[in-house]
Amino acid sequence: MSETLRSQVTRRDFFKKAVSVSAIAATAILLPKKASADEPEIMHHAKWGQKLGYPVTYNRYGLPSPYEHNNLRRNTKLLASGNFQASIAVTPIHESEGIITPNGLFFSRSHGGVAEVDPSEFRLMIHGLVEKEIVLTLDQLKRYPSVTRTHFIECPANGGQEWRGPQFNSLQFAKGFMSCAEWTGVYIKTILEDLGLKKEALWMLAEGSDNSEMGRTVPVDKVLDDAMIVWGQNGEALRPEQGYPVRLLLPGWEGNLCVKWLKRLEFAKEPWYCKEETSKYTALKPTGKAIQHFYANEVNSTVTHPSPEKPWLGLKKGEIVEIQGLAWSGMGTITGVDLSFDGGKNYVKANLKGLVLQKSWTRWSYIYKYEGKPLLLTSRAMDDAGYIQPTIDQETSIMGVESVYHRNAVETWEVTAEGMVNHVQIRS
Amino acid sequence: MSETLRSQVTRRDFFKKAVSVSAIAATAILLPKKASADEPEIMHHAKWGQKLGYPVTYNRYGLPSPYEHNNLRRNTKLLASGNFQASIAVTPIHESEGIITPNGLFFSRSHGGVAEVDPSEFRLMIHGLVEKEIVLTLDQLKRYPSVTRTHFIECPANGGQEWRGPQFNSLQFAKGFMSCAEWTGVYIKTILEDLGLKKEALWMLAEGSDNSEMGRTVPVDKVLDDAMIVWGQNGEALRPEQGYPVRLLLPGWEGNLCVKWLKRLEFAKEPWYCKEETSKYTALKPTGKAIQHFYANEVNSTVTHPSPEKPWLGLKKGEIVEIQGLAWSGMGTITGVDLSFDGGKNYVKANLKGLVLQKSWTRWSYIYKYEGKPLLLTSRAMDDAGYIQPTIDQETSIMGVESVYHRNAVETWEVTAEGMVNHVQIRS
Repeated sequence: MSETLRSQVTRRDFFKKAVSVSAIAATAILLPKKASADEPEIMHHAKWGQKLGYPVTYNRYGLPSPYEHNNLRRNTKLLASGNFQASIAVTPIHESEGIITPNGLFFSRSHGGVAEVDPSEFRLMIHGLVEKEIVLTLDQLKRYPSVTRTHFIECPANGGQEWRGPQFNSLQFAKGFMSCAEWTGVYIKTILEDLGLKKEALWMLAEGSDNSEMGRTVPVDKVLDDAMIVWGQNGEALRPEQGYPVRLLLPGWEGNLCVKWLKRLEFAKEPWYCKEETSKYTALKPTGKAIQHFYANEVNSTVTHPSPEKPWLGLKKGEIVEIQGLAWSGMGTITGVDLSFDGGKNYVKANLKGLVLQKSWTRWSYIYKYEGKPLLLTSRAMDDAGYIQPTIDQETSIMGVESVYHRNAVETWEVTAEGMVNHVQIRS
Repeated sequence: MSETLRSQVTRRDFFKKAVSVSAIAATAILLPKKASADEPEIMHHAKWGQKLGYPVTYNRYGLPSPYEHNNLRRNTKLLASGNFQASIAVTPIHESEGIITPNGLFFSRSHGGVAEVDPSEFRLMIHGLVEKEIVLTLDQLKRYPSVTRTHFIECPANGGQEWRGPQFNSLQFAKGFMSCAEWTGVYIKTILEDLGLKKEALWMLAEGSDNSEMGRTVPVDKVLDDAMIVWGQNGEALRPEQGYPVRLLLPGWEGNLCVKWLKRLEFAKEPWYCKEETSKYTALKPTGKAIQHFYANEVNSTVTHPSPEKPWLGLKKGEIVEIQGLAWSGMGTITGVDLSFDGGKNYVKANLKGLVLQKSWTRWSYIYKYEGKPLLLTSRAMDDAGYIQPTIDQETSIMGVESVYHRNAVETWEVTAEGMVNHVQIRS
């Protein structure tokens, strides 16, 4: 925009401002209009309004309403492996709205407990096959040009208890090993433009400073595509459970690859085959061989409203209700979601809601007139990489039922005539 | 997509899945590659990694790192009007990242304290000039088809202390009367499709159930455009300070119009002229008359990095740094931001970062090579309604300096040769 044009815009702005408001004398106060006579008692005299409320919250961090005390991350003995350090706490996605998970509810998985990192002592070393090796303080890291992106992070074991049939009659425990947030950090390719990556570098080791010294190897292609080092989560500092002060973010790829409490990136010709990419995070196939280098979480979806936790009790025949769910793909962007009322025999097209972003949760819905009859609600999503969720039989025919990871077959909720919701498995 | 094509996609999916992974024997574990010999001591032995971390957080709501204890909402005697019930707590936007404000840091303004509403006793009455008057429970309200939108909410007094010159050498206190979140709720027009709005209805009263019984009148045009009743904030229930369980959201319009702890909507032919739209929230002009019916927050911007709270101490001449800021407009979408290094004499074009959404915060940046010389950093934003931020002289020539509200003239940070940052006012 030229300077001349800009001056015109400025004058136009003021012209608009001056004429777009009506000016009346401040003293011309009319009497408030009375509410109608048949207004219910409660509208005038809500008991909480009869006394002064509590002061604005300052100098301390704000919390949810006490009435939301059940909307929390959860764990069970079934998920905890003997202790709660090498464990997981799962997100109440049955209570989720939109595509952002608040930081206080973001799912959390650690292998040696949550490290308590002092940011002033934080260092990130980048070395190996780079022209210039470097050790960065947090302030130095944050001086690189930043980016902000909305991405989900999902544990590859999300739904992994369900290979042989439903284990949890709960959306939170069956599918809550994932969350979605707005992340701020730096693309690693931006740092590598500064340091110079050697041509022979094909793999990157990412290592955490936590007690498990979590280590994972990443192909350089992914690093140069969209890998980030993130320090911001939904507009504030990354949470301790997410790797404060910084974690690796590999959009769409297994959560454990997104190494937390990051201390070191090393570039080399060959992969490392760390403990967590050989004994763990491999998928055992019926052949007795295991899939290694298993990275992107495949296209997936779930119904979130209704759910076993929030059934349709009290809903009457003929009433309108919004069936809702989430869809996500580590391969790209969701292009559509289908919804079935008969467990996957027939499907109708659901609507994608709000922002549809790459490697992000996408919310979908279907406006439904409740008939008071039993239903089998099944959703299936597809993405712009050309993938669609498989049926259970399609998936197990290739993967068997010994694996824990990367389950993305369709799931079904049974809705009873009374509106109760049960997690079932429909083979087809 | 036809059923035939879909089956093809399904088969293609599985073909891709089968060939896109390499299967090797799970027992083929190689030794981990050793880190280089010149690796600093701290990389191997970060003290927090020498002991087991704390367990995953479950059954309680997650909180920020203790090291982030200064990143909080604030209040001062200058903002509190004798008590902290009819008061405000402002957002630490100098620490903000991206465009989401976490719920624990969302700015909070109340007129009679924060009401503690029991959601099971919540009722919303919609009455007056509608064909069918109704009283809704929270569950009934949530059955309407929902929408999710990212919008800022801004107090019209944001920057209002600054009309006569800088009062706060602080970004948080000067510009933190605003925040931005992902909201979920229902368009009021959706409910009105159900109830039937009478033709003669031109105004809507929104009334809160809090101790101040906050009441504001809204033109029906806005109600039928994008007004929402929201119950979701960044993926969870609305916070108490934001009106739990539901508030009115008028995207882009003054925060006080977005009535919290909502209990009643009434439609009528004439506006109500409530206390808060006559004695308060009017703008006194030099003519002695006051602007009433003052709704949309005009196009605005600020530099967030650096700020008085986070100066450029330690930055060395020749180092690259990212100057960042926020821009927003209650009239529409940000189309550009200019940045000046000489207090507004000359401008360069800044870059818009990430998502650029209507009536939302938009983050912008400029990659800058620091020269170690004094600067006067001024930003100015423009929107797709054709507005651009005025200079201070342009604004005061029309509005004088008696108003508290709707200040959107450009602001300037002085950066000293030592990297200190001061809030100054450059007249032009």
